[in-house]
Amino acid sequence: MLRPWKTLARRVLLSRPPWIEVGDEQVELPDGRVIDDFPWIRTRDFAIVVAITPEQQVVLERSYKHGPRRVAVALPAGFTEKGEAPLDTARRELREETGYEADDWRALGSFTVDGNYGLCVEHAFLAMDARRADGASATPTGDLEEIEVFTVPLHEALAMLARGDVAQLSSASALALAGLAIHPRSAAP
Amino acid sequence: MLRPWKTLARRVLLSRPPWIEVGDEQVELPDGRVIDDFPWIRTRDFAIVVAITPEQQVVLERSYKHGPRRVAVALPAGFTEKGEAPLDTARRELREETGYEADDWRALGSFTVDGNYGLCVEHAFLAMDARRADGASATPTGDLEEIEVFTVPLHEALAMLARGDVAQLSSASALALAGLAIHPRSAAP
Repeated sequence: MLRPWKTLARRVLLSRPPWIEVGDEQVELPDGRVIDDFPWIRTRDFAIVVAITPEQQVVLERSYKHGPRRVAVALPAGFTEKGEAPLDTARRELREETGYEADDWRALGSFTVDGNYGLCVEHAFLAMDARRADGASATPTGDLEEIEVFTVPLHEALAMLARGDVAQLSSASALALAGLAIHPRSAAP
Repeated sequence: MLRPWKTLARRVLLSRPPWIEVGDEQVELPDGRVIDDFPWIRTRDFAIVVAITPEQQVVLERSYKHGPRRVAVALPAGFTEKGEAPLDTARRELREETGYEADDWRALGSFTVDGNYGLCVEHAFLAMDARRADGASATPTGDLEEIEVFTVPLHEALAMLARGDVAQLSSASALALAGLAIHPRSAAP
């Protein structure tokens, strides 16, 4: 009964490869209405990681991000490179940003960031039994932000989330999904 | 020690009021580097609602959304109107989209949707003791999408989330945050 929209035409209005592309579409709704200029935005898909140490600590970052325009608590994350599987992005970003590695990876879900305009897909992962790699440097490589890496118990990370210390929806969503996944009894009737 | 970026100049490249504005900024990083064209995107802030009935059912929607380009499970949500408090948006959208009302409202958090470019802010709410309003029509008013409204127990909603039935990050994040808020023991050590 619920039917998809049809795209009748599509154009690009602004292109900033490889970061952003913006345009609009002429779409036909199931009831026959035609919208001439429904916008779309395309940015880069990314992976984000909730890494838990053997001591049940979460690997967190503190950094300034220009989207929320403030210093806040966040999770390791980064754009998927061309042809890179999201899990490989997650492993790479965890290592590059924090110096941690893990063998036990679980998918927490993949979600379209904007319901109307698309934007990109968040691929969220849980990495259990995470440990600092031998010879790892926690100095971020190639990114613009300065990052401080620290660990806290999961319940403290969730308390930070509840009191507004997390600014970005990407980190908030992954941390909440991880909290549910690690304590599955919370999902039982 | 972590310092914010400085915006030295800012321009608008694309404007589609009241929906989207895109531009770039010349920013100065704390280490002195200057980036000439760091993008920003501005869309409209929105509120999203996890409404729980006295029978512990979650009020859900099924609809086609053009961002993920598929029919999926989602939560009631909508843009804040000019000057409207996010909680008022949440109450209005819950009523307009589903016909439900509630008196017991709790904030689940406000998060910037894109860490780099900004985009907009999601305001997530939990509405307890939600009931169908007298004379309520569940026919959506003024939106483009057809919506089916249904209710399931919270544990079933979280199972839908875990198995990929939720397509949008907005709904996934709010549902996961609600799951944690309703079962606070899951956040305990």
